[in-house]
Amino acid sequence: MNINERLDKLRALMAERGITAYIEPTSDPHQSEYVADYYKGRDWISGFTGSAGTVVITKDEAILWTDGRYFIQAEKQISGSDFKLFKMNTPGYPTYMEWLETKLKDGDSLGFNGKVFAQSLVEELEEELNDKNIVFIDEFDLIGEVWEGRPEIPCSKIFALDTKYVGKSAKDKIKEVREYMLERGAYNFLLGSLDDIAWLYNIRGNDVLNNPVVISYALISKEKANLFVDKKKVDDEVKGFLYDNGVEVQEYNEIINFVEDIKESSKLILAKDKINRWLYKAIPNNVSVIDEMNITTKLKGIKNSDEIKNQKIAYIKDCVALVKYFHWIDKNMGKVPLNEFSAQEKLLEFRQEQESFLEPSFSTISAYGENAAMMHYSASADKNAEFKEEGLYLVDSGGQYFEGTTDITRTVALGPITDEEKKDFTLTLKGHINLISARFLHGTSGHVLDILSRYPLWQEGIDYKCGTGHGVGYLLNVHEGPHRFAVAPNNVALEKGMIITIEPGVYKEGKHGIRIENVVVVDEDIKTDSGQFMKFEVLSYCPIDLDCIDADMLLPNEREWLNNYHKEVYEKLSPYLSEEERDWLKHETRSI
Amino acid sequence: MNINERLDKLRALMAERGITAYIEPTSDPHQSEYVADYYKGRDWISGFTGSAGTVVITKDEAILWTDGRYFIQAEKQISGSDFKLFKMNTPGYPTYMEWLETKLKDGDSLGFNGKVFAQSLVEELEEELNDKNIVFIDEFDLIGEVWEGRPEIPCSKIFALDTKYVGKSAKDKIKEVREYMLERGAYNFLLGSLDDIAWLYNIRGNDVLNNPVVISYALISKEKANLFVDKKKVDDEVKGFLYDNGVEVQEYNEIINFVEDIKESSKLILAKDKINRWLYKAIPNNVSVIDEMNITTKLKGIKNSDEIKNQKIAYIKDCVALVKYFHWIDKNMGKVPLNEFSAQEKLLEFRQEQESFLEPSFSTISAYGENAAMMHYSASADKNAEFKEEGLYLVDSGGQYFEGTTDITRTVALGPITDEEKKDFTLTLKGHINLISARFLHGTSGHVLDILSRYPLWQEGIDYKCGTGHGVGYLLNVHEGPHRFAVAPNNVALEKGMIITIEPGVYKEGKHGIRIENVVVVDEDIKTDSGQFMKFEVLSYCPIDLDCIDADMLLPNEREWLNNYHKEVYEKLSPYLSEEERDWLKHETRSI
Repeated sequence: MNINERLDKLRALMAERGITAYIEPTSDPHQSEYVADYYKGRDWISGFTGSAGTVVITKDEAILWTDGRYFIQAEKQISGSDFKLFKMNTPGYPTYMEWLETKLKDGDSLGFNGKVFAQSLVEELEEELNDKNIVFIDEFDLIGEVWEGRPEIPCSKIFALDTKYVGKSAKDKIKEVREYMLERGAYNFLLGSLDDIAWLYNIRGNDVLNNPVVISYALISKEKANLFVDKKKVDDEVKGFLYDNGVEVQEYNEIINFVEDIKESSKLILAKDKINRWLYKAIPNNVSVIDEMNITTKLKGIKNSDEIKNQKIAYIKDCVALVKYFHWIDKNMGKVPLNEFSAQEKLLEFRQEQESFLEPSFSTISAYGENAAMMHYSASADKNAEFKEEGLYLVDSGGQYFEGTTDITRTVALGPITDEEKKDFTLTLKGHINLISARFLHGTSGHVLDILSRYPLWQEGIDYKCGTGHGVGYLLNVHEGPHRFAVAPNNVALEKGMIITIEPGVYKEGKHGIRIENVVVVDEDIKTDSGQFMKFEVLSYCPIDLDCIDADMLLPNEREWLNNYHKEVYEKLSPYLSEEERDWLKHETRSI
Repeated sequence: MNINERLDKLRALMAERGITAYIEPTSDPHQSEYVADYYKGRDWISGFTGSAGTVVITKDEAILWTDGRYFIQAEKQISGSDFKLFKMNTPGYPTYMEWLETKLKDGDSLGFNGKVFAQSLVEELEEELNDKNIVFIDEFDLIGEVWEGRPEIPCSKIFALDTKYVGKSAKDKIKEVREYMLERGAYNFLLGSLDDIAWLYNIRGNDVLNNPVVISYALISKEKANLFVDKKKVDDEVKGFLYDNGVEVQEYNEIINFVEDIKESSKLILAKDKINRWLYKAIPNNVSVIDEMNITTKLKGIKNSDEIKNQKIAYIKDCVALVKYFHWIDKNMGKVPLNEFSAQEKLLEFRQEQESFLEPSFSTISAYGENAAMMHYSASADKNAEFKEEGLYLVDSGGQYFEGTTDITRTVALGPITDEEKKDFTLTLKGHINLISARFLHGTSGHVLDILSRYPLWQEGIDYKCGTGHGVGYLLNVHEGPHRFAVAPNNVALEKGMIITIEPGVYKEGKHGIRIENVVVVDEDIKTDSGQFMKFEVLSYCPIDLDCIDADMLLPNEREWLNNYHKEVYEKLSPYLSEEERDWLKHETRSI
């Protein structure tokens, strides 16, 4: 079936059920950013495979909303179908809710699958459409019904993480959560987000590619801590581990009964943007809901000293693999044919050579030339670009290790580059240094700091249509809140122990893409009469290609930062390299 | 009566009325930032004369909360009394609401004057104290009852502003507001903030020192536009002007009856933070209130081309006065005795020589040496510092002209200055230039841009405990929203036509205070593939003292900005100066 045939089938079913418009978000019952294949209904119906987006389908229209990372990719993937692209956060394009507001009329019905729709989104829809008389039909998974060959729900084995890796036992974490619940006067805390659950119980799995989470719910009361999960995933060892930490295992689908049985008139804490509509509707009416960011999200975002110590080890391993990779490219360029895909396969090999490497932490972006302008480009065995001895090559990749999760991007020259490429690279580097070397007052958010990275680019009329950086989990999701560097408002102050990426870039469609990404941990800096200042400690050490830099554009302090950074790169990585690699690294990290 | 005697009288009355804690904010029935003397109950009870602060009094305690601009001044003014200072936005100090939450017990009663308390504040208090059973007593003005010699409510004549000054007639503004009301489905719009009313009806008065507003309310319905004001203020000419613009005049106190009579089941727009508790309580129960920022605040914040053209004229006048003043100081230093107060009197004379000058736009800050560390210092005939031929002198002042409102600060050396002073001045200048010369993407808020000015200071461990800048009215309040440069979250994007100050500084208690303030208007810059960029056009032109600058600390682009700015200062102001003043200005604006 091609896309339009799929649309025909869906529309026939919509007509049968009396649904005017049907919404399919990118989501699962846990409001995950990355979802298991079973939940990729939006991909199936639209052909667009990016990690974020929403489609809305009516009798006559089919529209895909996605963000700036995917504009180019989405246009390509939906071309030839009835789908139209609506660009998010772009003047002239309504949001999908605004669009529904203009299209729906009194008496129309709006369909979506309540099992994958966050309660907060439903409330936003209700608010947006409150002037009209619209019927919400939330009980059908219409795409699921027409989807032939839908993958199975994953069922990977759970493994437990030793406290030596994560610094704190599940028992202690649960205790901390219960102390918070007491403070808020709540009897229960309902948790739907997979990374929060994995963090709290110190368990991991393989239910979502690259995200070592376990499809599950958790309900923590004053007395009990329950984990709702397909019991086939839990072997005796894990069962014992959970038992020792005070956690009881229930069947995944039992969650609905437990929620229906929540004690009357008690207080329940949850995050409406992390609990699906189906579960929310099951909460008894007279339970008082406290809607707030999960306390586990806040606690998880601040890494303890063991986690930071381990993350440093993980970055050494990961950066050793990367340096070996760039050396290997350098050595083989012009001698053997290389392409984006064969190269990234080699990179995976280098990572696999590292002890305790589990899997990539996200789908590697190995993008040559104009492909790198697509922020989340993905090469494949069938579709990839050959390397030539010119232009820029961008590789954004990371690994899952027992010592944590990594994420790093470098853009390198495969031969001569244009003046424009060199200028754009240097501007990106200036933005990178401006943020990574900042001293800032405690209390400052990533929303405010974001501009430090953008500023040098803005002065040249260039912007990148994505955030400057995101939190990173510990052997968990590579995107993790609550902090981030972004234009979108966010008042979360950066606290000691938060790990975050710094990744400004330049993306010119049809030309080139540049990104320089390091990962840092927030630490305390000096304390003065003005208060406590904070700084970033760098975790990732990998050379920044000197051949891409116009050194005349660098200020003295920028040059100093770069030279110091390169000195540290050599010191930290050289013990793990062959002599040939070491010599290569020495040259790559020379002072300028 | 000294402060403690006043407290005794108040406490006796509190006991009589059964009030456990009494709150006196800095406010009037219109939630003005600066209030008429009649409403300065907080000043009277505490002795603290700063423009912002709240006091809470219980049987045993008397506490003053104020912000960083006033920490030093407040400590001095309350010393010797029972009052204690609680520093706002400072770790270790609860807010007054948090403090009340810890102090009040079930059954206690909390008193405040509902006529000067914003409805939004009452709701915040209710939220903060909702766990307890606290009785709110909002009908007494207790301080008013014990205040001997309380000033009269002001009664200044109203004058109308010609459209040639403000670019748009009151009739057209009311039409615009009604179009917005229609969009929101509202029948009425209730306006309590004085600058919004003055802007909407193109009227001005003298009811608050330096703020040419008229104490009044406005109620705009689909059919009528009413102004509620002491009718003695309205002469026949103004009455005719208002009539021609479709505005009816009602007695000030009639507002309560009009509010009580609002049509049942209709929608009413208002801003809860700009409507007092007394008036809010009068709204019939089944009226549906839309609580949002006043649309007039948004419209007023964006100046039209006539207003901008006039503001440029006002700044030329104002800066000519300032240059004459600094030249006069230079000429007289060491020859005649000068002090902070005699000097600021001379500055007022220079402003008064300018055509169409009405009054200062705020209380002039003329502060020498360590006095300048008090951000809102005020010298007087009795209490002022003598100028010496050394150190720094800061003067922050502005005027009300028919062509608009001005605000500018310069800090100058009166003789040799220390290396620390020079370094702090240069860091302040770097922050100033970093922001004023920024190109930024449309949609960016002043909250995000604020850091550009702070960044060079933060790198040296220095912060200033106030915002970086504020909007400025047109022949109106010198502080005007909705936009501002501040650490406090604010997501208002800077739009073409917004006027805003840029005023970073360094304040070292017991040493010195430095502030460099210019005023700019937001304008469009280049449009690229990345979107519409914005820039600042400078309105204020006055030399920045080159004797205070360590030129070695300046980057090439900073030096270039300074030299260009000084070139423009000379070009714009020299036609209005005497030959002697011109020669002086030539030297002050030389290239470095």
